[in-house]
Amino acid sequence: MPHWKFKLHEVIYEADTPAGKIFDIALLIVIFISVILVMMESVTSLLNKYAWEFYIAEWVITAIFSVEYVLRIIAINKPKRYIFSFYGIVDLLSTLPSYIGFIFGGANLLFAIRALRLLRVFRVLKVTRYIGESRKLISALRNSKAKILVFLFAVFIICIIAGTLMHLVEGKGGGFDNIPLSIYWCIVTLTTVGFGDIAPVTPLGRLIASIIMITGYGIIAVPTGIVSAEYSKATDKPIRNTQVCPNCNEGKHLDNAKFCHKCGFLLND
Amino acid sequence: MPHWKFKLHEVIYEADTPAGKIFDIALLIVIFISVILVMMESVTSLLNKYAWEFYIAEWVITAIFSVEYVLRIIAINKPKRYIFSFYGIVDLLSTLPSYIGFIFGGANLLFAIRALRLLRVFRVLKVTRYIGESRKLISALRNSKAKILVFLFAVFIICIIAGTLMHLVEGKGGGFDNIPLSIYWCIVTLTTVGFGDIAPVTPLGRLIASIIMITGYGIIAVPTGIVSAEYSKATDKPIRNTQVCPNCNEGKHLDNAKFCHKCGFLLND
Amino acid sequence: MPHWKFKLHEVIYEADTPAGKIFDIALLIVIFISVILVMMESVTSLLNKYAWEFYIAEWVITAIFSVEYVLRIIAINKPKRYIFSFYGIVDLLSTLPSYIGFIFGGANLLFAIRALRLLRVFRVLKVTRYIGESRKLISALRNSKAKILVFLFAVFIICIIAGTLMHLVEGKGGGFDNIPLSIYWCIVTLTTVGFGDIAPVTPLGRLIASIIMITGYGIIAVPTGIVSAEYSKATDKPIRNTQVCPNCNEGKHLDNAKFCHKCGFLLND
Amino acid sequence: MPHWKFKLHEVIYEADTPAGKIFDIALLIVIFISVILVMMESVTSLLNKYAWEFYIAEWVITAIFSVEYVLRIIAINKPKRYIFSFYGIVDLLSTLPSYIGFIFGGANLLFAIRALRLLRVFRVLKVTRYIGESRKLISALRNSKAKILVFLFAVFIICIIAGTLMHLVEGKGGGFDNIPLSIYWCIVTLTTVGFGDIAPVTPLGRLIASIIMITGYGIIAVPTGIVSAEYSKATDKPIRNTQVCPNCNEGKHLDNAKFCHKCGFLLND
Repeated sequence: MPHWKFKLHEVIYEADTPAGKIFDIALLIVIFISVILVMMESVTSLLNKYAWEFYIAEWVITAIFSVEYVLRIIAINKPKRYIFSFYGIVDLLSTLPSYIGFIFGGANLLFAIRALRLLRVFRVLKVTRYIGESRKLISALRNSKAKILVFLFAVFIICIIAGTLMHLVEGKGGGFDNIPLSIYWCIVTLTTVGFGDIAPVTPLGRLIASIIMITGYGIIAVPTGIVSAEYSKATDKPIRNTQVCPNCNEGKHLDNAKFCHKCGFLLND
Repeated sequence: MPHWKFKLHEVIYEADTPAGKIFDIALLIVIFISVILVMMESVTSLLNKYAWEFYIAEWVITAIFSVEYVLRIIAINKPKRYIFSFYGIVDLLSTLPSYIGFIFGGANLLFAIRALRLLRVFRVLKVTRYIGESRKLISALRNSKAKILVFLFAVFIICIIAGTLMHLVEGKGGGFDNIPLSIYWCIVTLTTVGFGDIAPVTPLGRLIASIIMITGYGIIAVPTGIVSAEYSKATDKPIRNTQVCPNCNEGKHLDNAKFCHKCGFLLND
Repeated sequence: MPHWKFKLHEVIYEADTPAGKIFDIALLIVIFISVILVMMESVTSLLNKYAWEFYIAEWVITAIFSVEYVLRIIAINKPKRYIFSFYGIVDLLSTLPSYIGFIFGGANLLFAIRALRLLRVFRVLKVTRYIGESRKLISALRNSKAKILVFLFAVFIICIIAGTLMHLVEGKGGGFDNIPLSIYWCIVTLTTVGFGDIAPVTPLGRLIASIIMITGYGIIAVPTGIVSAEYSKATDKPIRNTQVCPNCNEGKHLDNAKFCHKCGFLLND
Repeated sequence: MPHWKFKLHEVIYEADTPAGKIFDIALLIVIFISVILVMMESVTSLLNKYAWEFYIAEWVITAIFSVEYVLRIIAINKPKRYIFSFYGIVDLLSTLPSYIGFIFGGANLLFAIRALRLLRVFRVLKVTRYIGESRKLISALRNSKAKILVFLFAVFIICIIAGTLMHLVEGKGGGFDNIPLSIYWCIVTLTTVGFGDIAPVTPLGRLIASIIMITGYGIIAVPTGIVSAEYSKATDKPIRNTQVCPNCNEGKHLDNAKFCHKCGFLLND
């Protein structure tokens, strides 16, 4: 592995050198600009007025993302590790649509595909790595994930039963026209969102709705109890070593690691 | 008790043999299909288009459930234990309506009865038995049940008083036309659902509504505090022994139990 | 103090004898019936149809409550203690209106006064005394009251500032016509009720609304945190002695108390 | 520093002498009156009716605030410390607009500027200093600030992705006309506010909305868990020493401090 490749890897994949940090921040700014551009393009009045500027901006951003994608592949020993990782696929999906659109045309579908670029916004979450506080949060969430899913699953079954009941009580013709719609209303109600586009009108329907709401109010406590308990158990030792193995792209090394714990490759400090 | 009955009991009521697991999963799939069918039947456009297919599917599912019901009665020594248990009644209620409908006809009422089949969805919750995480959750919920009921009861009394007050302030003619309606609105508001189909319009009504909302916001904390405290006290030792007594259908045995703790019948491993 | 007075006091004010329990339960049933009657009277269609039945029922209930009120005054040595207590005033307010209505007539105002009878529903909360679980709950709530009030006060100040801002941004003509209305909307939004009768329409208004909502979502945690912490500290030793002093009406005695801790009067077991 | 200046400082900036307390309470009353006046002025019908009374009241309050502002500058050794502090700027902003309005006229803009006076309401929060209970609350909030911000940031990114998805699914023409609007709807939904001014109408849109709502219901637990954990760790030792250094305006001194810990100036008891 030549020295320039080592250097390039350090700049692109890591964040413990000044150059690496600057690269990270510059990339985040470009991502934010691209996200705001996609948002603005969806506003018809803006799109009609600044069509040309949007066209230019789109190609500039596509060019930057393409160069970044190629550099990321070059800078790593086993490129497949990156290409088939979550961020590798997201990075590809955020450059490809522009080229496809150039070749095939078709404005409407194009926009849908181009919106994929928004997925890049997930990369921003990587910054939370440097915020020690978020470590404990993520750990607590990971521990309570299974329990909260079981709970949400039970909530969903309650919604199926209550939705069917509301459909039978309120009858056809109103907002509870069929069971899927009634279940949708139940979810809206039980989660205390309450849009109000659908609302019961019969006295019995309102009585059942009251019971559903009070139930929702009573059981909202459950996920909170889980997270609270897990959070107070979780450790909040942040990972300070931001080095990433130049060979296999593994990122979670111990603070004093000199070799990659996965492939044995020498980590550069 | 003959050997085949032992085997049948093991497959139908337990889950620690491969055959028992396959039976459980197959049953869950059939239940899910029947639930989705009932939902789809309620959509008028789908019902008109695929009336014949729904008719066939209904009878196939009724047949499967009927066979399962008979097998469950055969496989146990004291069938009454099963027939009059919660799941026994639900299982009967989910097969009977189709036969009644066949004899008496009458489409509209029929659907209401057939929707009873949805109750089977509760059986899905049995799967949570295998998820160790849910054990602690259920234990915490059971411990906090009485306290949360007392709390919800107090909330309901607040709603009666506040509802009457809103009825007097907003007067007849609007959405607060009578006290039961005002109480319904109070529940909608205090639980932070807020449909908006009824909303105060007088300045004084809005002032009282503000107080109700801030109160609701302040006391939503109570059930959460209860569950959090109970949850951190609860043990999370899962029950791994899924054996069910072939004689009396008792399901909660200690991990190393050889005899049923209720009737002394020998448990097969 | 004659013996019959002792006996009467035991039946009316206490609950540790069979007669006392029966009296309590009978009273609760009458209260519930009177509450349901007031609710039903407010429904115009029911009132028109059953005017005569309501009239009879009202006088029967008024008679029962009047007799109870007089008995309560007789059964105690220092009647002022009862008359000027919270429940004493509520009891008077729930009998008086019917007599006033009889003398002065006037249906509309009358109903408003008669609705005062609903306040009796608070007496139902007295039952929670026998539920050991509620003891801890009340203790936790009492401890966190001051902190939650400070929090709700801070929330209210945020609503004043945010409401004024929304009024300036959304301008006159819409739902944010004046500052009190905007503050009302802010409370509706920050408490996550969200009726939707008033909703921002300008882009800037929606941006500010988003910030308000995310803030509300973030700070709903505060009262919960307070109650959780207080609840896990609170003791849950229930008070089992339900004796009430026949002299001064004091109700909170230690389990083994023989004399009233307030006036030294001998308590009958 | 002359003695009268010492005395003046004690009255205006501190609260441990009777005169200081009276000054504080009087000021709070004036602030509350001015806040209510600004609110009432925004109601068109009231403004038209009592224009002259509002005009008088405005100048009286402006005069009081101006005198207070000048006294605060005189009473301190280093006035810049006060002038450029948060409350210094707020105090200036709440007197200036009236004078500007007098010179330049212009009613509409004037009101917007005059509403700045509402910022003074923050000063009310200073009272919480005397409520021991709020100390622990503020400490818990300060500790959980960083974590809650990270969480709200993650929530916002979820809203961007989900909003774009809803825009693509629901299409143009409805309430999801462009991506910023869809993101606004997502925030309204995920925070369980649910205005209902925008609501999905396509089956797929409603399915995605259901997932968003259940997600919001599941993650509302996170900030609560954080605050609960931090709150039970926080100390609740109130600061009883309300002395403020007459030289540098520093306010947080230890209970037994004799000299300012920042500039060494002698504190008067």
